[in-house]
This record gives sequence, structure tokens and C-alpha cells, in this order.
Amino acid sequence: MPVTLAVDAMGGDHGPSVTVPASAGFLDATPDARVILVGARDVLEASVAKIKSGARDRLSVQAASEVVDMDEPPADALRKKKDSSMRVAVNLVKEGRADGCVSAGNTGALMAIARFVLKTLPGIDRPAIASQLPTKKGETTALDLGANVNCTPEQLVQFAVMGSALVSAVDGIERPTIGLLNIGEEEIKGNDVVKLAAELLKSSGLNFYGNVEGDDIYKGTTDVVVCDGFVGNVALKTSEGLATMLYQFLRAEFMRNPATRLSALIAYPVLMAFKRRIDPRRYNGATLVGLKGVVVKSHGGADALAFRYAIAKAHTEVAHGVLDRIAQRIAAMPSPTSTPVQPHA
Amino acid sequence: MPVTLAVDAMGGDHGPSVTVPASAGFLDATPDARVILVGARDVLEASVAKIKSGARDRLSVQAASEVVDMDEPPADALRKKKDSSMRVAVNLVKEGRADGCVSAGNTGALMAIARFVLKTLPGIDRPAIASQLPTKKGETTALDLGANVNCTPEQLVQFAVMGSALVSAVDGIERPTIGLLNIGEEEIKGNDVVKLAAELLKSSGLNFYGNVEGDDIYKGTTDVVVCDGFVGNVALKTSEGLATMLYQFLRAEFMRNPATRLSALIAYPVLMAFKRRIDPRRYNGATLVGLKGVVVKSHGGADALAFRYAIAKAHTEVAHGVLDRIAQRIAAMPSPTSTPVQPHA
Repeated sequence: MPVTLAVDAMGGDHGPSVTVPASAGFLDATPDARVILVGARDVLEASVAKIKSGARDRLSVQAASEVVDMDEPPADALRKKKDSSMRVAVNLVKEGRADGCVSAGNTGALMAIARFVLKTLPGIDRPAIASQLPTKKGETTALDLGANVNCTPEQLVQFAVMGSALVSAVDGIERPTIGLLNIGEEEIKGNDVVKLAAELLKSSGLNFYGNVEGDDIYKGTTDVVVCDGFVGNVALKTSEGLATMLYQFLRAEFMRNPATRLSALIAYPVLMAFKRRIDPRRYNGATLVGLKGVVVKSHGGADALAFRYAIAKAHTEVAHGVLDRIAQRIAAMPSPTSTPVQPHA
Repeated sequence: MPVTLAVDAMGGDHGPSVTVPASAGFLDATPDARVILVGARDVLEASVAKIKSGARDRLSVQAASEVVDMDEPPADALRKKKDSSMRVAVNLVKEGRADGCVSAGNTGALMAIARFVLKTLPGIDRPAIASQLPTKKGETTALDLGANVNCTPEQLVQFAVMGSALVSAVDGIERPTIGLLNIGEEEIKGNDVVKLAAELLKSSGLNFYGNVEGDDIYKGTTDVVVCDGFVGNVALKTSEGLATMLYQFLRAEFMRNPATRLSALIAYPVLMAFKRRIDPRRYNGATLVGLKGVVVKSHGGADALAFRYAIAKAHTEVAHGVLDRIAQRIAAMPSPTSTPVQPHA
């Protein structure tokens, strides 16, 4: 069955100049898919008209008159912009006209709108943000990366269930290993929430590896790493900062003088291979998991290649029936994982 | 006045084979200093006898019959091993026979022993682990990196005071900028503890920059980054894991085939310059800050060069009167920062 994806064509730092070519590139590579571009009709139709490939026939435009700003408070985006490109894209999923949607817009707004419009899956208190990260061995899926600042142990278990189902569906790993992000330094390891979550995970029926530390993420110790959104977001942003710094240091050493610049020229193919290997664009696209619909968030600054990866991620999740898998896993849990949750601070 | 440092010569993964040459190397470079090596007298005296430089005259040995294991529960190390090399080294500071001490042993045990023997400075509820990290601009001091899993807003303010005093004393920056580690993704930024800490920091008289995110650490946005020990430890370990992975990827690309190996040979001086620039050994030595005594924790796996950096760090802190500076800053705080603290979970 052909997959149709709604793309918030106005979101992100670059809007249609990135989202339209990315959509066309995705369609060229994925013959059975369709994309609905959501946003300013005139602008989008003019962009689509310039596309020369056959992908154009599988692109359509859905008008939306507003755009959510990158720094707009999510509550405002939700209440005041009912015809935003982001909202309309999510609505298309709700209405069944699209199988999933992709946006490079404001993360908080996308989460608020997606929760309000699509609702969470049964047994899930709050959605989480999940993303793949590169490791020595391949990839690890980490969640939550910023949606939930204060988590209960039960929510961490739900993240584990969702991460397990996501990896199982997308990567074909039958029983993904689950690591619980913790620290190993102090007397009583971890805080109370993490300790309780570990107990729950042991009896969850999931393939619980145990506690992992920050360095285990990039070692690829487990297929899934579970943490609260504060810790996960700090780990992710810290990684981005460090990778950027190291890349700049490496570049600076090669650019230091004529001799080093000559060796950069000679080493160029190797340096490019290294750069490709760690290219963050390949990992663009975080999944808002736990919703009754596939929603993928692209980095706001994504270029066309990166945004194309985010669209492809949504396509893969739809094609692999991720939502059904998560629902099945939740239903198969030995004990109810959904408990009354304290109001989110 | 000459500075005397006590070195736990038995601690760490390598014991005297690292700690003794590191001490000698440190003394060769620091003519006014003295080192007391603490541990098995026979072993240490034999090691010292082999030292050929004049440093030997400024090295003495203090016997200690026990060693704290790297994975020993801190409570056991504290209660059952009263003649451990770690404990005796800390005792020397307490007795005024040493101005500071250095250990590569078990972090939890060192913190427990140091707190018990030395006590915290007035106005400080709990010590923190502080370390310098490299940034695009130079260095940032981050704390806490693992000592305190659950922190109150008041404790985060105390960390800010201690970090500010440390950077001010050691790096000569009059009013270091303070960043509070937070996340920027979700609706209501940060959790309650961080939000309250930000309010307190605004009226603290410190040079509070505001919230920073993970990537700001390596951007060098502020001189000091404050966070709780769980988040700080995850950020630190994640960084170690990522740096290791990137280094291995770079190496793998250069080792791929004869042509790439040839370019590695040509680029060798540049690659070595890059390696030196990010050499983690240069940043070895975390300060247990907030105690009535200078205590520096070396990485357990440190080699002689890395351990020497840790000794030098303790020396610098003593020579710059870090303890007095912290005490003065605490005393100068506009409002009492020490409040009754809930029992540590």
C-alpha cells in the first residue's frame, strides 16, 4: 500500500527552499510514496512546478495560512494558530489522509499539537522524543531526548517499551537490549526514580540489560538507552557541542600553515570519508513516539539532504507498522504500566 | 612557602608504577614542592631509590597498610580500612602535614573519607566534583560531575559559588561567568530545581549569565557550568564515549588501505598536533570542592603524565589559596545559602 506523508513545508530555518527539494529527492528514491506539502499554496505550487523529475506527480499541496515561529510558546502555537502548516500537517494524519508527518519546526509546539490532535496510545502517559545515535557497533536509539523533564519510574518503563518496539520494527531486532542511563560514581548509584525504574524493568519482560553510563551510548552497549528528557537532552546537546569543537580543532590543525594545508590536500579523501561517516545529517529525524500517529521532527537547521533523511525515517516507521507494534507491546506487558501521573511541572 | 602534597601512591589501576614516577616528574618541574607518598613502605622506598633526579630529596614515604579497592563500597572503605593509603593521605591534610592530597582511587570512597575526615567548609552542605573541560575558547569548569545525585536549588547555588571561587583563584578571572545547565526544548524550560536555582542565582551577586545548554559547555559560553551530579556525570561520560568513538573512526579511515595509510604518514604531524590538543591527560584531575582541604581525584586509569597533571592541579589550588577564596565568597553571599537539606537519597 502506498505511503502518504504530510510535510510541514514552512517549518524550520529554511522553509520551502529545503522542504520541497527534500521531498522531491525522497520521492525519487521511494517510488511507492506520496508527499503532501503543507503551507502557503502559491509559494509551494511555484516550487513544485520547478521540479523536473517524475516525483512531481506524487507531490500535492495542502494550503495552510499560518506558520509557527521557531521561538513561539507552544501553548500559543496550539491555541492561536489553528491554520498553521504544522497543525494542518498533523491534522492530515488524524484524518487518515496522511500516514505520518514531518516537521522541522519548533519542537515544543510540534509536541503540543501532536499530543492534542492525535492523543497518546493506550497505556502511554506522555510521548517521548526518540532518536538514533551512531555508535562503534552501528546505532543506538535513545529516548527521551527532551519532551519530559520530570519522569516517573513508570514513564521510564513506557519509554523502554516504546524504544524496544521502535527498534524491533525498524531494525528487525527481535528483542532489543534496553539500557537505563545512570551514573556509577557515587555511593548509592542513581536517584530514586532510576532505581525504581530498574526494578520495574527487571520484571517487565523486556530484554533489560541493566544500568548503562554515558559512555555506553557511543560504545553501542545496548540497542536502546532510556533516560528522562532533561538528562537525554543534555547528553545530546553536549555531544553536538563536542563533535563540533573536535571537528573545528582538526580543521584548524590542518589549516595551520602551508605544510599542513598540503597534507590536508593529500589526506582529503580520508578526511571526507571520516566526515561522511559521522555526518549528523544521516541521523536527522527524531521520532515523537507514543502518539496515535507517526510524527518525525527534523532539526530546525536541516538542509535538503538532512530533511530527506527525516522524511525517509517517517516512511520507514509507517512501512514497518511501528504504531501497531508499540500498541501490541504495551498490551503484552505483564503488569499495568500506566499509573496516575503527577501533574507535569 | 613550600607546598607539601600527600599522594595516595597505591590508588588507581596502576598504583606505584604510575604514582611514583608522576610524583618525581612533578617535583622536577616544581622546585619548591614536596610530596609524601602514602602506601606500602617497602614497595615505595624501593621505587623512590630508583629515582635519579634531585626530586628524590623532596619525596618521603608515609606507611599505610591497606588499599581501598576500586569497586569497594565507600561505606566499607570508610569504616573498615582506617589504615588505607587513601585515608592516611587525607589524614595528612587534616593534620596539617600536607597542604593537599591526590588519589586515583575509588571516587565514592575518596569523597566519603574526605568528607568524614576534613568536613565541609562553613555554608557548604555537600562537596561537589569539579573539573576543567576544553572548549573552543579555552577551558570551562563544570560541577557537580557525580557527587550529588539529588540537589536542592540552594546546593546548585553553592556549586556556583565554589566554581566561581575556584576559577577566580586558579585562572585569575575576577568575576567568572556562571551558566546553569538546562534544556531548551520543552514547553516550560527546565525542572523546578533548576528554575528555582536560576532565581537564586540572579540575586546571588555572582556573575550569572543565565541558562546554558549542553553544547554551550564546549562552546565555552561561560567560565563555569553548574548542574547536579547526575546530569554532570552523564554529560562527562557521554563526552568521553563520543571522543573515543570519533578518534577510532578517524583512525579506521586512515588505516583502511595502503593509500590511506600513506596519507596518514604524511598527515602524521598534524594528527599528532590534533591529538595533543585534545589529550584528556591534560585535563586529568577533578577537584573535590567544598571541603576544608584540597583534594584532587585523578582518573583511575591515569598514566604517569596524566597523574602528574592531577598533582600539579592540587599544587596550583594550594598555591592560589583556593580554600580561603571559597570561604570568603561564601561569607560574602548576600543571603544565607545554607538551608536545611533533605536527607540525601
